[in-house]
Amino acid sequence: MNYRAVVEYDGTEFSGFQFQPSARTIAGELERAIGELFAEPVKITGAGRTDAGVHATGQVVSFSSERLFPIERLAIALNSVLPRDLSVREAGIVEDAFSARFSAKSRTYEYVVRRRPMRSAISARFAHHFYRALDLDRLARAAQALVGTYDFTSFCGVLPENGRTTVRTVRSVAVDACGDLMRVRIVGDGFLHHMVRNCVGTLLEIGTGDRDVDAIVQILAACDRRAAGKTAPACGLFLCGIRYEGFDSYAPAYGFPGPV
Amino acid sequence: MNYRAVVEYDGTEFSGFQFQPSARTIAGELERAIGELFAEPVKITGAGRTDAGVHATGQVVSFSSERLFPIERLAIALNSVLPRDLSVREAGIVEDAFSARFSAKSRTYEYVVRRRPMRSAISARFAHHFYRALDLDRLARAAQALVGTYDFTSFCGVLPENGRTTVRTVRSVAVDACGDLMRVRIVGDGFLHHMVRNCVGTLLEIGTGDRDVDAIVQILAACDRRAAGKTAPACGLFLCGIRYEGFDSYAPAYGFPGPV
Repeated sequence: MNYRAVVEYDGTEFSGFQFQPSARTIAGELERAIGELFAEPVKITGAGRTDAGVHATGQVVSFSSERLFPIERLAIALNSVLPRDLSVREAGIVEDAFSARFSAKSRTYEYVVRRRPMRSAISARFAHHFYRALDLDRLARAAQALVGTYDFTSFCGVLPENGRTTVRTVRSVAVDACGDLMRVRIVGDGFLHHMVRNCVGTLLEIGTGDRDVDAIVQILAACDRRAAGKTAPACGLFLCGIRYEGFDSYAPAYGFPGPV
Repeated sequence: MNYRAVVEYDGTEFSGFQFQPSARTIAGELERAIGELFAEPVKITGAGRTDAGVHATGQVVSFSSERLFPIERLAIALNSVLPRDLSVREAGIVEDAFSARFSAKSRTYEYVVRRRPMRSAISARFAHHFYRALDLDRLARAAQALVGTYDFTSFCGVLPENGRTTVRTVRSVAVDACGDLMRVRIVGDGFLHHMVRNCVGTLLEIGTGDRDVDAIVQILAACDRRAAGKTAPACGLFLCGIRYEGFDSYAPAYGFPGPV
């Protein structure tokens, strides 16, 4: 049987998605929980390998097992053995060819910024505090230069191994606000290491007026990480959804009632 | 000098507001931080003594000191010595007669419920998960019976000491929704121990249809805690604001862009 689960997490107390033998990770906790229910070791595949501190409202994982678990009880059973900061929204059986990672058509990330003079204890886990004035129209206009198929080396933290491509396609970037929370939504086919956080860090520098509104074009052309802005902190980032043929796991970032 | 500060906290890892010698409390952390900046021991007065696990977006505290701290830097200075889950939104000097507790005209609490089948890791700290269907119109209609001046003994956890009055005035109750989050706002002159959580617990039982829509009238008349419903969990409750003559500290519960 091939299983798919939509997973939510508060990434604050995790060392990221990928399994590490001596650290608390999303994959580690999920494999432990699934292994417990299925009474056999299970390896999961995730759609997005989120970094330490990054959250998810619509992460998707897939895994295979010979065992047939009563599907209507799988999500509830997993939630009963997962820690409080990791949960399963839905789980089901999918065709054998399905891979959470390789079947994905696009991934949606949302980055949340709290705009106010003083830091907020309430949103400390789920939003990047930004006390300087931001021109959202300017930021949104500048962001459109990210849409398209480009070499995103300038926005890449650790370059892919073995000389693999740094070309990615960003399908859309949108910006909206809800009270004093602001979010940037980026949809793309895939993302390089720290790519969303580096794009957002750069857009914030444009939103304050520290950089030109048309800076993105030159930054992309430079193919040099030093051309772009600072990496925005992990706490503001949410992996919100993965789109597949006939299935979309999207749920909005915390603090927003729906899509942008 | 008499100082006033508007305080925000994620109550999850606090043993409530009131100082306890060997537990982590809001008052304890604030008194430590203020004492550090003012270089003298300081006692604070809070507008609402929230329980363990209860949050605040608009708690108000006052304290006196002979020292004059540069007021434009006080909030920033406090935030730099307070833990991540406790912050000051604004701070200022007020008239000597001001008391965060005794000058309050009314207090606003909001209770947040996440309505969906599966529990959510993302909102685990800030919303009570409720998986059963709720009729919000029915719940909102029923809630109007709480408005007025009554003996709220049926909704009181630990009765006040020395036979003090259990009569309180609830000024308004309102209900709204934002995505799958629902909130109940209760404004009153003051609240008994667990009063908001017991009111909300009872309203949820009305919203599911387990109790009659007009149950509140009889519950109030009973003056018996056993007549009301279960105490709703602390995690959904926010102390959102205190209204004074000429000042209101209100900020909405996390997940909502503004007032009900």
